[in-house]
Amino acid sequence: MIYNLISIGHVRKTDSGIWLVIEKEFWDATVHLDLFSHIIVLWWINRMDTPEARRTILADPPKKKGLTASGVFACRSPARPNPIGHTIVRIKEIDKLNSYIIVDHMDADDGTPLLDIKPYLPSSDRVENAKVAPWFRNLEKKYF
Amino acid sequence: MIYNLISIGHVRKTDSGIWLVIEKEFWDATVHLDLFSHIIVLWWINRMDTPEARRTILADPPKKKGLTASGVFACRSPARPNPIGHTIVRIKEIDKLNSYIIVDHMDADDGTPLLDIKPYLPSSDRVENAKVAPWFRNLEKKYF
Repeated sequence: MIYNLISIGHVRKTDSGIWLVIEKEFWDATVHLDLFSHIIVLWWINRMDTPEARRTILADPPKKKGLTASGVFACRSPARPNPIGHTIVRIKEIDKLNSYIIVDHMDADDGTPLLDIKPYLPSSDRVENAKVAPWFRNLEKKYF
Repeated sequence: MIYNLISIGHVRKTDSGIWLVIEKEFWDATVHLDLFSHIIVLWWINRMDTPEARRTILADPPKKKGLTASGVFACRSPARPNPIGHTIVRIKEIDKLNSYIIVDHMDADDGTPLLDIKPYLPSSDRVENAKVAPWFRNLEKKYF
């Protein structure tokens, strides 16, 4: 079974900022987004949409610290069976006139297709005391 | 442009528990997942993969509290242009022999196709003091 996704916009990244440019036909789907500070952005990892990358099952651990490889479901490798990127970002500004959302960061290249935007809800999305693999432990801080 | 997704497994839900059943060919992608307590599960909202549901731009607010409709990017409506479900769950047990992951909850029906599993990383996934729309405020607690 194959499931189809469409693009709802794209990432624009320049030296002066990062925009999530939403297609005009989907702009009304952002109504009330101004009541939230953070969003979950799902995007298509375009450069990893190749037969080879999508066959990747094991990936090297971060910064290759001499550890054994992790499964792609146990790391954030961009090469994975379904290359869906997942990034939580802070909304800096919503520009209705130009139909874009200015955000504080984005680990996707300029031009990357956007798939979905969901409001960040602490009640379901914030986990306290989550356990992570040892090689992620020194990264653990909170995101404000 | 259309992007294609495949199923990497499915949800099994009975009175005795909830399993994420992973296809045998993808099982090795779970290597090191036992070092994490929580995962982000992306799944296909099968029942909303209809032309009508995918044209939904505005959705009623939770429990219809007399509020005006929100855009689907500002709520967790299952009807949306790309019906990708996003649920953070706690791993209860990993069963290598049967290639499944037992989890503590899952807001997807029995048989729902799974798309991706990512480890929950507080450094990027936990936001402190996120602002939410007023109608979500009474829901806000932390997930342990």
